[in-house]
Amino acid sequence: MEFEALKKSGITNLLSAFGRSIWLPQGIFYWTGRAKKEATIDATIGSAQGPENEIIAGAPDKAVTFYIPSVQRHFAGLKSEETVPYAPMLGLPDLRKAWREWILRKVGDLRPRVEPCLTLPAVTPGVTGGIFMAAKMFVDKDEVVVSPDRLWENYSNIVERHIGARIETFPFFDGGRFNLKGMQRKLLDTLAQQPKALLMLNFPNNPVGFNPPQEMVQPIVQALIDVVEQAGKPIVVLCDDAYEGYVYDPAALQRSMFGDLCDAHRRILPIKLDGISKEFLFYGGRLGCLTFGLPSGLDVDRKALQEELDNKLGGIVRSTVSNCTRPVQSAILKALGQLDQVLAERQRTVDVLGRRANLLKAEFAKVSLPQLRPLPFNAGFFCFCDVEGVPANKLAEHLIEKYKIGVVPSEGGKINGIRIAFCSVPEKDIPTLVNGIVSAIKDLAAES
Amino acid sequence: MEFEALKKSGITNLLSAFGRSIWLPQGIFYWTGRAKKEATIDATIGSAQGPENEIIAGAPDKAVTFYIPSVQRHFAGLKSEETVPYAPMLGLPDLRKAWREWILRKVGDLRPRVEPCLTLPAVTPGVTGGIFMAAKMFVDKDEVVVSPDRLWENYSNIVERHIGARIETFPFFDGGRFNLKGMQRKLLDTLAQQPKALLMLNFPNNPVGFNPPQEMVQPIVQALIDVVEQAGKPIVVLCDDAYEGYVYDPAALQRSMFGDLCDAHRRILPIKLDGISKEFLFYGGRLGCLTFGLPSGLDVDRKALQEELDNKLGGIVRSTVSNCTRPVQSAILKALGQLDQVLAERQRTVDVLGRRANLLKAEFAKVSLPQLRPLPFNAGFFCFCDVEGVPANKLAEHLIEKYKIGVVPSEGGKINGIRIAFCSVPEKDIPTLVNGIVSAIKDLAAES
Repeated sequence: MEFEALKKSGITNLLSAFGRSIWLPQGIFYWTGRAKKEATIDATIGSAQGPENEIIAGAPDKAVTFYIPSVQRHFAGLKSEETVPYAPMLGLPDLRKAWREWILRKVGDLRPRVEPCLTLPAVTPGVTGGIFMAAKMFVDKDEVVVSPDRLWENYSNIVERHIGARIETFPFFDGGRFNLKGMQRKLLDTLAQQPKALLMLNFPNNPVGFNPPQEMVQPIVQALIDVVEQAGKPIVVLCDDAYEGYVYDPAALQRSMFGDLCDAHRRILPIKLDGISKEFLFYGGRLGCLTFGLPSGLDVDRKALQEELDNKLGGIVRSTVSNCTRPVQSAILKALGQLDQVLAERQRTVDVLGRRANLLKAEFAKVSLPQLRPLPFNAGFFCFCDVEGVPANKLAEHLIEKYKIGVVPSEGGKINGIRIAFCSVPEKDIPTLVNGIVSAIKDLAAES
Repeated sequence: MEFEALKKSGITNLLSAFGRSIWLPQGIFYWTGRAKKEATIDATIGSAQGPENEIIAGAPDKAVTFYIPSVQRHFAGLKSEETVPYAPMLGLPDLRKAWREWILRKVGDLRPRVEPCLTLPAVTPGVTGGIFMAAKMFVDKDEVVVSPDRLWENYSNIVERHIGARIETFPFFDGGRFNLKGMQRKLLDTLAQQPKALLMLNFPNNPVGFNPPQEMVQPIVQALIDVVEQAGKPIVVLCDDAYEGYVYDPAALQRSMFGDLCDAHRRILPIKLDGISKEFLFYGGRLGCLTFGLPSGLDVDRKALQEELDNKLGGIVRSTVSNCTRPVQSAILKALGQLDQVLAERQRTVDVLGRRANLLKAEFAKVSLPQLRPLPFNAGFFCFCDVEGVPANKLAEHLIEKYKIGVVPSEGGKINGIRIAFCSVPEKDIPTLVNGIVSAIKDLAAES
């Protein structure tokens, strides 16, 4: 966007330097918009959707955004005192406590290790709000943030366009495994240039629906320990756990790596970012939690430390949104009080997505097309296919025009591929989806 | 706060420059917290409260945060599709349109003037979110923002601590009138040093519950026209209209000054910030709207201009919160569809607050104490008393300790006084409140 109208109107003269520079790339929304109008199979949408009767017995066959009845039904019973007053800046105290318990439940047998490290979660406006707050707190302008080379496009909006830092990436995979050595090298190179570094870890990953196998966790943690030992400098590890719990392979890590990073090394500060969007299938709610895993052995008054962290996070929340939406906090607090029921209902969606992921994998396995290489996937909402010989944007364009199939293309640097949101494609459409992609690549390959 | 624990823990080494500098002053929250525990009369809380039967016939006598039943009741009927999916970044399209209509209704007979100027409102996370977005867009680091010297303390968190700019003030009153000349002088001084300036206008004002008389509006607008003419430079006027509609004097301006600023001059860009917190008595909802009043005569494609502004606002929203809470958007959209009913119910709260304001004024009129000077008030949720001879913090401390009365003190520069939130004090307590303040000042004056 060239902002010609803003220039011509004179409004550009009123903008700050930030106001002049900020812009929103078309990205996912462009393709979501196109798909909404043109596609019969829409694999662009990052929320779990499908016929309502797939998750609720006896419900209509009509497509809905999957939800958890035992979360949503609380809105009907909220009293005005549970919706109307301001919530405290960092969230309802009971919600903060309940979310801490939820984290401890999720870490399972790591509880004894994690509990002494865990701060009281701060409620954020979604995972995005958590990433923004953490990035403001820990990332300087012109600094480098490290991430695998498959990452949610909004990281660039936050870290690069908003904060003015730079994301440098390493290849996600080394063969079919998470690229330990690449991660280490990029972190060490970064720490050679700056006094600290922030690493983004997003498992299950968007856009690659991948969680490493359980036996890879210790090597990953050890690799990070080696980095901070060798560099003699500290790192923040931002665990973007938006998709935690959506794992379809029993051999894969079932929980966040955050627990394993707690107390791993005094120079490693893990931060856990959770969100209700996927964890409680409530995208529109806009709540998340930001929780630190502080080394347990610090010779510091923990209460003072919590207060100081809260003060700084409060300074960010107060100066951007003041506080987070109370009706949703009230509903989630009630839902956390009936967690077994909520998780049982969520399991239906996890099962549906697992079946779709497995079918998609089976369909890809039937295909032998050198230009199409699905990356390993076993978790989350998406899979990603590297594409060779055909520009991804051109492929997406052709797919939607000729086959009425919507996907999100990714082009740039060494990346050329498409993200497929199986979360929004019913099982019955998956064979057609794969066939369409194969045909589209063949069409375009034949052309050139 | 010295952040000793953060230093000792080594976490300070991981913080960005922003992370090191950001902090939240105790401010209002300190006194609200104290009052909650210690006060029997709590005049610290910035939300309208009182016995429920004051606003709803037959309801219990128990104190609640006042609400609008025809806003809140929609939560009971929301379908999952109205709560669960993401809302678009800048808000539900129908809500944006409905809010535009709401603004046009509020400007009344100015509609023909305002309508051609008005953009489609962008939904923000509360008025705070709107101020933050506008400040990011239009205020540079180290620049000066101009405001009357009675202002919401959160302006400092946003403009100074977050953005790194500086607020410079002019005395709010000149005699009993809004200080036109002071405003002009400060703006001209500012524009002598920088290419543009942003003026905060908050009517009805927090902490001074003041709206100028209707006949002052044209002189204020003319004063701003004179400024941009004389300086040859443009200004943004941020109309913080959080308290719009709460006016208890028929001679005072009943609506925002935004409408009068539309098309006032091609170098004046008015921005209207609305919020549901007070307008629809829904503090915990966290929604607001940001709307531009673009000169109607611009030789620019208006659609392109709207798209470009939306792109930049979208860049900020996407990189901070992604989008705003959908259940609340859905409820407000329904409420806007029954606006007459909603406004009729709101009127009960307006009437209650009006009676309190008038009683408070009458009680102050009985007092003859040179150290206590209530500033003119006729609107909003608060009044402000200048205090002489006794430090405001000391007065607030004494008031809460001896008289169990909570107020928010303000000390700094030439300001020494207390903010009284009559919005949260029932009528029956107002004489005791005033007597307590008078006695406390006398106690302390006698001591010294």
